[in-house]
Amino acid sequence: MEITRLDPGPRMSEATVCNGIAWLAGQIAEDHPNAPVGEQMREITARIDAVLARLGSDKSRLLSATIYLADIGDFAAMNAVWDAWVVPGHTPARATVEARLAAPAYAVEVQVVAALNG
Amino acid sequence: MEITRLDPGPRMSEATVCNGIAWLAGQIAEDHPNAPVGEQMREITARIDAVLARLGSDKSRLLSATIYLADIGDFAAMNAVWDAWVVPGHTPARATVEARLAAPAYAVEVQVVAALNG
Amino acid sequence: MEITRLDPGPRMSEATVCNGIAWLAGQIAEDHPNAPVGEQMREITARIDAVLARLGSDKSRLLSATIYLADIGDFAAMNAVWDAWVVPGHTPARATVEARLAAPAYAVEVQVVAALNG
Repeated sequence: MEITRLDPGPRMSEATVCNGIAWLAGQIAEDHPNAPVGEQMREITARIDAVLARLGSDKSRLLSATIYLADIGDFAAMNAVWDAWVVPGHTPARATVEARLAAPAYAVEVQVVAALNG
Repeated sequence: MEITRLDPGPRMSEATVCNGIAWLAGQIAEDHPNAPVGEQMREITARIDAVLARLGSDKSRLLSATIYLADIGDFAAMNAVWDAWVVPGHTPARATVEARLAAPAYAVEVQVVAALNG
Repeated sequence: MEITRLDPGPRMSEATVCNGIAWLAGQIAEDHPNAPVGEQMREITARIDAVLARLGSDKSRLLSATIYLADIGDFAAMNAVWDAWVVPGHTPARATVEARLAAPAYAVEVQVVAALNG
């Protein structure tokens, strides 16, 4: 039951790993606050790709995703980026709900669980 | 770290399995939009039963449940169906919060994690 | 794939364990309804400590946390307690969103996943 952590900060870690399963921190578009939801999703999916790459994994190994939209009216615009990003045949289980986020500048937050390789 | 998936669609899978743990997609009452929350919960719990059965598992092996209610005022009506459905002595950890869902027709969404058998 | 449960009630268990991973029920400040969010967080973190201790684990082994704030305006006050509680270098992945909770008396709910020892 060894635990490894990526970028363990004073408040949270970017990711934690145990038994070959990785829990990622909820990702937001820190570089694109106030941008349209599609642009925020492109940053978020790139961030998830980067974290998974550092873990030696990738988006084809996502197990679960929870998507929080500040405005559920952004559902279609969020999905446009999501659908283009995920790997057909290797999509995670998913739930999407509306929730206000830590700052009004953020339109969407995505929290995923993934499997490592090997 | 093999991953198996149930009904992997272009957007999400019905369930993903790794290390004997199953993550299910958030279940909504697709056949009973706009129905009272109790009726929606009956469909949702039947859907979870069906997915778990296809995985060779069942509701006595639920590990975790997150319940999203579009109106937290439906808490008691949701619980009436939940309490009758779960297996005494084998209940999951659970959290219930209010969140607007993908369409206003849906009163509740339930996201579970379960263990396989064997 | 044995499952063990802590305090399995008719509606939910305090925690479930499988493969060395523990899923805890969403914790609320049952003894401090209507208290300020900081006081509620102190009760909640003490509750998590107590549950983890009963499982033979502790807060240095948290993998994931999802924090639901009834009012996202409480973000800073919640974090003040959180930051003092977590173990530097051993923080979990985390997501924080706004969501109304089961009763208006509760300002915050925290749902965690942790690894056991050994």
